[in-house]
Amino acid sequence: MTDPVKTDEAQTFRPEARAPRGFADKRARDLRAERAILEAVSKVYERHGFEALDTGAFEYADALGKFLPDSDRPNEGVFALQDDDDQWMALRYDLTAPLARFAAQTWETLPKPFRRYAYGPVWRNEKPGPGRFREFIQCDADTVGSARPEADAEIIAMAVAGLEAAGLPRGSAVLRINNRKLLNGLLTSAGVETGGQKLAVLRAVDKLDRLGVEGVRLLLGEGRLDESGAFTKGAGLVGKAIDAVLDFVQAGSGGRSETLSKIANVIGGSAEGDEGLNELALIDAALKSLGVADDQAMFEPSIVRGLEYYTGAVFEAELLLSTTDEKGNKVSFGSIGGGGRYDDLIARFTGQPVPATGFSFGVSRLASALRAAGREPGGTARGPVVIINFDQAHMGEYFAVAADLRNAGIPAEVYLGTSGMRPQMKYADRRMSPAAIMLGGDEIAAGTVTIKDLDLGRELASGVADNAAWKAERPGQQTLPRGELVAAVRKILEG
Amino acid sequence: MTDPVKTDEAQTFRPEARAPRGFADKRARDLRAERAILEAVSKVYERHGFEALDTGAFEYADALGKFLPDSDRPNEGVFALQDDDDQWMALRYDLTAPLARFAAQTWETLPKPFRRYAYGPVWRNEKPGPGRFREFIQCDADTVGSARPEADAEIIAMAVAGLEAAGLPRGSAVLRINNRKLLNGLLTSAGVETGGQKLAVLRAVDKLDRLGVEGVRLLLGEGRLDESGAFTKGAGLVGKAIDAVLDFVQAGSGGRSETLSKIANVIGGSAEGDEGLNELALIDAALKSLGVADDQAMFEPSIVRGLEYYTGAVFEAELLLSTTDEKGNKVSFGSIGGGGRYDDLIARFTGQPVPATGFSFGVSRLASALRAAGREPGGTARGPVVIINFDQAHMGEYFAVAADLRNAGIPAEVYLGTSGMRPQMKYADRRMSPAAIMLGGDEIAAGTVTIKDLDLGRELASGVADNAAWKAERPGQQTLPRGELVAAVRKILEG
Repeated sequence: MTDPVKTDEAQTFRPEARAPRGFADKRARDLRAERAILEAVSKVYERHGFEALDTGAFEYADALGKFLPDSDRPNEGVFALQDDDDQWMALRYDLTAPLARFAAQTWETLPKPFRRYAYGPVWRNEKPGPGRFREFIQCDADTVGSARPEADAEIIAMAVAGLEAAGLPRGSAVLRINNRKLLNGLLTSAGVETGGQKLAVLRAVDKLDRLGVEGVRLLLGEGRLDESGAFTKGAGLVGKAIDAVLDFVQAGSGGRSETLSKIANVIGGSAEGDEGLNELALIDAALKSLGVADDQAMFEPSIVRGLEYYTGAVFEAELLLSTTDEKGNKVSFGSIGGGGRYDDLIARFTGQPVPATGFSFGVSRLASALRAAGREPGGTARGPVVIINFDQAHMGEYFAVAADLRNAGIPAEVYLGTSGMRPQMKYADRRMSPAAIMLGGDEIAAGTVTIKDLDLGRELASGVADNAAWKAERPGQQTLPRGELVAAVRKILEG
Repeated sequence: MTDPVKTDEAQTFRPEARAPRGFADKRARDLRAERAILEAVSKVYERHGFEALDTGAFEYADALGKFLPDSDRPNEGVFALQDDDDQWMALRYDLTAPLARFAAQTWETLPKPFRRYAYGPVWRNEKPGPGRFREFIQCDADTVGSARPEADAEIIAMAVAGLEAAGLPRGSAVLRINNRKLLNGLLTSAGVETGGQKLAVLRAVDKLDRLGVEGVRLLLGEGRLDESGAFTKGAGLVGKAIDAVLDFVQAGSGGRSETLSKIANVIGGSAEGDEGLNELALIDAALKSLGVADDQAMFEPSIVRGLEYYTGAVFEAELLLSTTDEKGNKVSFGSIGGGGRYDDLIARFTGQPVPATGFSFGVSRLASALRAAGREPGGTARGPVVIINFDQAHMGEYFAVAADLRNAGIPAEVYLGTSGMRPQMKYADRRMSPAAIMLGGDEIAAGTVTIKDLDLGRELASGVADNAAWKAERPGQQTLPRGELVAAVRKILEG
């Protein structure tokens, strides 16, 4: 596939110009969208007192935890390589593992609780596919060193405000909140003691959306035979316990207070369940004080998330907008971010548990979601005004006009290729230029300038039938005194 | 050094929390500086009609050219690894090689000339040291597909405007410009034909700053014995040729026109020299039209740069500010960026030469230079207003105050740790908070709030002799009606 192309100079190796699989070249439109999102969200996070942090691309592989590479399979899930001192390093696959390493490394010197936000690329060595990349931008906020449920509430409130600032107005997304301790408590009350059985219950609950209540009922009990005839072994719960779990996961339809009452009725009794319930009540109270309403953040007992990672509250941001693909077909984006409380991550280094909670979202994914909902993050990009280049002898005039426009804050450039008039106009069109400026010998002698409004030209073009009439009318074209140029271009940009 | 720390749980592996060598954790102050620089420079580049582009972190190793890894030494200069289809990939070591690959790959579909700017991390697998990192942020602008000297001039003008926007006002930096063709032409006239001898001349000229004219004279001729007794073989030029080279490299003291005349006198005659001279004259004319004065961009025939890379104009940005290290010692920053014309890079892929020119600077390096000159890029960072947390029962009041401040655009947070009053004040101090807010039971009952101006407190602290007087005076502390809080905090922030 990637055989080098040999030219007639037999000795010359010419590599094929291609990007590695799963790595995207991003053009201006994508970058504009990502930067607009990151700028808006950073402002929200800083307003909440979170400070920026950026760690390096690499971590030592042992610090990344679940991906401990060995020399036979160094690239299992991550991009790993051996440093010149033989230590394995890997590119970060998220922003939480580097935070845990940083916090453990600098704990004594940090102001505590330590509140940081971060954004940047992360890398996953997975099979790439359409829309599935091996490098993408994440944006995270975490509070390390506070076990208070109010710290979770603040992360949730900030996620709500951040997504709104990024272009999702109220009603277009919702934060769904759960607490691991509730289901754990319920299962303990029901006599389920083994971790394996609890995990099986979580896996079953996680399929509620896809299989419905009756499908989950089977998976909570003996197991389920799917349409293809494959059998999935169940969690092995019996009658009453299954009902309790199903009552619990269906308790989330109302406002936060209503859901809390429903949950309290189902959970009742176990210490861990009560703890989870109390945490949710404190989260609810803090959200109220922070002005976060029921339609912005709700309790949803069927939310599961990262099975063995979270230790308390978990949250997920769901897109409510209706989205379509390029062909106009409806697509469901579902979750656009999530997080929760993970109290064990820093303990991996220090042996001391350090409470932590955070929220993370994929920036390119959010940009895609916004676009699929018909919103262009960062607004429509405009190219520069293009000054048509007729004659080397007039280059000074062209540059002077470009400088005038730039000094007025208007992006502008002199065409610096060697093509004629028509390709230059085509260039301006492809750059999405709002206007082309023409300075011929006549204009220069008369102290005037000709401006062609390219948007208007494109618009009018459809209404002019024949080419001759078009040329005679020169739609959107005007000749003005040189001193009126900046004002005229500004008018075109505003119109 | 990095032996895992074993705890008393003998089975538990605890990795040491440390960043890989040569990779820095960047805190808020550094990120603020880098982001301020990138935002300012991006605006300038977009105003010149350059569009944003971001390529992925990896390129196929054969596309990176000079670093073709083999499996024995995969990491020579770059961070390389083998993909699961056995192709070698490497992290980009600059932003030009990925641009060349991208341009070659998409050439047919690009608007031409293609003008792009880019910023992001690059990685070099070199020995790290103090202030010497293996990952750093570069910011580049390039025009691909224009051989016109005006394209070089525009890159130079943009570099001048970009550095000024980044915090280097006129007079604090200068662009020095040269053209490879001048010295090449001069050497051809002098009968020097071999590439090896020309390279030796360039290497000698490059040492002018360090060795002075007489040192370079020796290196142009037979060679030079340094103080340690080591002998460096010279380029082997003889009498007249040496004089001509030395006249040439010393021609750059005046304004651009003056230097051009001096160079013309020395170069005279060779086709390549005349071509270089003509290019500089066109660059000078364009710079004049663009309003770039002699003190902002000058011709400097002793500038060399990347020996076998550039093919025409070369430029270098030099810091003129006097800079000191943390101990107050003078340090010379010298070059803070550079670039030039490289017409062969895209031809590696396509076999067709494509003219290209660009400028690149290191963002962290520029931030360090600005700091060493006593300027903090991005201004001084302020932490959030901290609302002191006395009592769980009043949490709702604390959050409501935080929300009020945030809604007014003022960063604020409720302290969410579990420590008492004094550690909370210390926390606010370490976060560089402008103010702490106290809401005790009395204040809440009375509808008031107490604000402590922490800057004023720090300032007054030095003037108050004893602790008792300090406590009695409570400098910088005031109690106000709750409705006056936002205005009072704003006053503190402005003062």
